[in-house]
Amino acid sequence: MKVLKIVLDTSLFVNPDARYLFGQTPKSAFSNFLDALKSKKNIHCYIPPSVYRELMKFVEGGLPSQKTILINKKPPSSYDSAIPALFVYEFIEEFRMRINKGLRIGEKYSRKALHASGSNTKEEEIIKHLREEYRVALREGIIDSKEDFDLLLLARELNAHLATSDSGLIEWAQKLGIPCLSAQELKELLSNCA
Amino acid sequence: MKVLKIVLDTSLFVNPDARYLFGQTPKSAFSNFLDALKSKKNIHCYIPPSVYRELMKFVEGGLPSQKTILINKKPPSSYDSAIPALFVYEFIEEFRMRINKGLRIGEKYSRKALHASGSNTKEEEIIKHLREEYRVALREGIIDSKEDFDLLLLARELNAHLATSDSGLIEWAQKLGIPCLSAQELKELLSNCA
Repeated sequence: MKVLKIVLDTSLFVNPDARYLFGQTPKSAFSNFLDALKSKKNIHCYIPPSVYRELMKFVEGGLPSQKTILINKKPPSSYDSAIPALFVYEFIEEFRMRINKGLRIGEKYSRKALHASGSNTKEEEIIKHLREEYRVALREGIIDSKEDFDLLLLARELNAHLATSDSGLIEWAQKLGIPCLSAQELKELLSNCA
Repeated sequence: MKVLKIVLDTSLFVNPDARYLFGQTPKSAFSNFLDALKSKKNIHCYIPPSVYRELMKFVEGGLPSQKTILINKKPPSSYDSAIPALFVYEFIEEFRMRINKGLRIGEKYSRKALHASGSNTKEEEIIKHLREEYRVALREGIIDSKEDFDLLLLARELNAHLATSDSGLIEWAQKLGIPCLSAQELKELLSNCA
């Protein structure tokens, strides 16, 4: 049987929507995943060290090396890689749109705060809602960290699948021709593959 | 004498700080530049069509084709180009920082508005300052448009100099190994070259 290469994102073990397939907590989800992976000779899993460090923040006390060694902690060869210029164009356009959205949100909450004067509106309540709305508008569905980009580069370099439940990663992976696997698909693979 | 290839940015003819070297208005600055360029056999000037369209918005009534034909309106070959992955990493990091700054500004003005309640602070005054501060923090010194990226790609593709007075363009051009010319240097070249 053909070997299947898979790059793993933290979202699989951290996001509650995906994690429940593998375990209750990030630690048990990751640990159960490793147990299931152990006997699968044809599934090779990789994770960039930056993403592994992120995952370990959620895995209290860590896991024994003889288990975690099952996953190849390979960084992408970023000094040798190039990205199509069109990807960068789309990136710039996306950020430009998001930045404009961010300003509209700042304006909305400034007006709201001004009109709330005299009422009982609490400052921290306004700031909390501003932060939440800004985060969703500017961060969701976008590649906004080194870790996200490491995942894309590594999957591309290895001609691997990217296993993730992050909609932003999926969208940008598709632009680069990277096949994705959902948490559900990954779980089924582990149950059925040799 | 060696031919010098130069890619032109609008800032040279539009930004008052650079424009004054060539003329009073964008139209006269660009027109005077073209007059000076006419006899220079060893200076070849290029401009991406997207950037040329931007420039034409500032040149009322346009200029005759026999003048503007002096500049080669060449788009970058963006379907054939690739960008080093490290450039994209820096890009993502830069945007991430800017987006965080944007939120801090939104928070600052929301708090300000709340505390201004009852006073005579005008809504439009607050919004005006918010917009200005946000624009400077999120837009200045960054590549945030297709046009900016066209300039970088074209200069890189042609092994040309990029003539600009935009600090963001200069910074990102340097990361890609593109030599830059200031408006002053461009003016001197036109005065002294054959």
